[in-house]
Amino acid sequence: MVSQPDSLDAAGPPPLAGLMDEVWQEYAELVTQELHSRCSALADPLDEICGYALLPPGKLLRPLLCLESANALGADPRIAVSAAAGLELAHVGSLMQDDVIDSGLVRRGRPSVYAAFGVPAAIVSGDALISSLFDALARSDPAVADRDVIRSVRHAAQAICAMCHGQLLEDRLSGGDDCDLDAYQQMIRNKTAAAFRGSCEIGATLAGATAAEVALLGDYGEQLGMAFQIRDDLLPFTESEPDVGKPRADDLANGRPTLPLVLAARALRLPRSAFADCYRNGTFDAVVALVTDSGALERSWDMARGHVACAVQQLFSLPESPSRDRLMSVAHYAMERRV
Amino acid sequence: MVSQPDSLDAAGPPPLAGLMDEVWQEYAELVTQELHSRCSALADPLDEICGYALLPPGKLLRPLLCLESANALGADPRIAVSAAAGLELAHVGSLMQDDVIDSGLVRRGRPSVYAAFGVPAAIVSGDALISSLFDALARSDPAVADRDVIRSVRHAAQAICAMCHGQLLEDRLSGGDDCDLDAYQQMIRNKTAAAFRGSCEIGATLAGATAAEVALLGDYGEQLGMAFQIRDDLLPFTESEPDVGKPRADDLANGRPTLPLVLAARALRLPRSAFADCYRNGTFDAVVALVTDSGALERSWDMARGHVACAVQQLFSLPESPSRDRLMSVAHYAMERRV
Repeated sequence: MVSQPDSLDAAGPPPLAGLMDEVWQEYAELVTQELHSRCSALADPLDEICGYALLPPGKLLRPLLCLESANALGADPRIAVSAAAGLELAHVGSLMQDDVIDSGLVRRGRPSVYAAFGVPAAIVSGDALISSLFDALARSDPAVADRDVIRSVRHAAQAICAMCHGQLLEDRLSGGDDCDLDAYQQMIRNKTAAAFRGSCEIGATLAGATAAEVALLGDYGEQLGMAFQIRDDLLPFTESEPDVGKPRADDLANGRPTLPLVLAARALRLPRSAFADCYRNGTFDAVVALVTDSGALERSWDMARGHVACAVQQLFSLPESPSRDRLMSVAHYAMERRV
Repeated sequence: MVSQPDSLDAAGPPPLAGLMDEVWQEYAELVTQELHSRCSALADPLDEICGYALLPPGKLLRPLLCLESANALGADPRIAVSAAAGLELAHVGSLMQDDVIDSGLVRRGRPSVYAAFGVPAAIVSGDALISSLFDALARSDPAVADRDVIRSVRHAAQAICAMCHGQLLEDRLSGGDDCDLDAYQQMIRNKTAAAFRGSCEIGATLAGATAAEVALLGDYGEQLGMAFQIRDDLLPFTESEPDVGKPRADDLANGRPTLPLVLAARALRLPRSAFADCYRNGTFDAVVALVTDSGALERSWDMARGHVACAVQQLFSLPESPSRDRLMSVAHYAMERRV
């Protein structure tokens, strides 16, 4: 459902390298245990397909943000492990359906569920995993107040609805020439940033946070997600092909409005399709040169840095803690990552 | 996601004719109002697509079962209107994705969302509608206890997971020859009956029912759903083509294991594909004659009647009320309906 950038899930160097201190290692183990027990509780053939897609797990960024958001508010992150695993289930479920939409044959370096099991299995197993998020929330630790479980269900439903909305916006904008900066921002806020926002909101909510605290961590997540997506848009222009995890011209070929292209089109007063033409008549490096000369790469970096600064700014309202430090590190990682 | 029989939603005679007394008319109006307000709360382009699929509404059988289950336990059914509308949202969402899987071009006498808006829109809008069920549950009337809202979320997630499971089973059984009676029953229990079970369970749960009462109404819903599906399987053998709402040979062409074919294959010691061969070399009426002579139609009717009797049996444990009477009428309607 969500056109999550493939490169976030590409096989490659150790995931979240540099971020995985002992605490996050422990979080990741807790979530992975929960994923294992969830998979074995599904009935065949659902468990076979879901197990294939879920294990071994990916970066677990959304679950880790959920647990850390609870921790940053002083709660024991263990109360949110069921929810955190649920977020990964829904994420992987949405990727399964995404691969149907994009005919994506490879996911995390292996045949996608769509390629390995077919369209019906990918759509239907995706639905089962997305719904499992709500089951996971409803099975939250008994220490969580019922009221907060219900609030978390609403945050989850809102996030999924926003992701669907963002995906539809992307479909409408892809191929056309009429994506201005506002439309681009609306698209990535829904498509990518809403999942990060929701992960933080859910962790905070289960920790019993006030509405203001939930909004604060939600805003952090949203700004982080915007930065992540922009950095992702920049990858084909800044990294070599193996690191990007997909052909560098992929977005260009699919007509996807990525930030460098949207800004370069505006600066050069060209339709976005001119860059696809340039690629067809030359090389991707010719497109890189054109986009770089327009100043669009520099502006994209500036915008991404702006979102990181906003994300970090939110965190200053929280009391100092190792947990807050880790959330800050994630924001900086969003920029520094090369994959 | 759920291969809900098309004919349940085909355009045709007044929906649920004979069942719609004043009370059900009022229920249907309440649910329809809620659907309107839900649609207008979605953001464009999601609201356009969802509004297209949801309005004017279909039979609303699942919402009506939900409201009546609450009422049968002495609660004001208005406490469950949000949930009831949510059940319709999820149902329509699953039909959208179903049409992608089956390349279904027509739904309720109009182009399906898949045909009118394309694959990405049908998958993504379907996800948004399925997730909206959980939002609707979380927005239940303040008179509902928080604990009961959380229980209803679990029932909803279980129902959706079961429906996905049933759809996968159907995909694995379709085309093959190895569907015995046990496999058939497991398939329809998940694919069709789980949604009826869930609708009743959710209504009962929001009414504050005990676990025993929820199980009782859930069992009623499940037996009702089994009867509905078997009656649906029988339609091509008992009704003329316009009433069936799809080509009578559709299931045969798609290799779907329907009860008359499963039983006839066993009685005649033939592979199920023999009936498709018979159709290809003759007419559908030749298949009807073969299946009828095998005794499979009579046995299918008997099994459906058995499920109706089980459904009604459950209701005798409830106190007498007009609400209980209406639930009994639905069970009989499952058999009597010609469409």
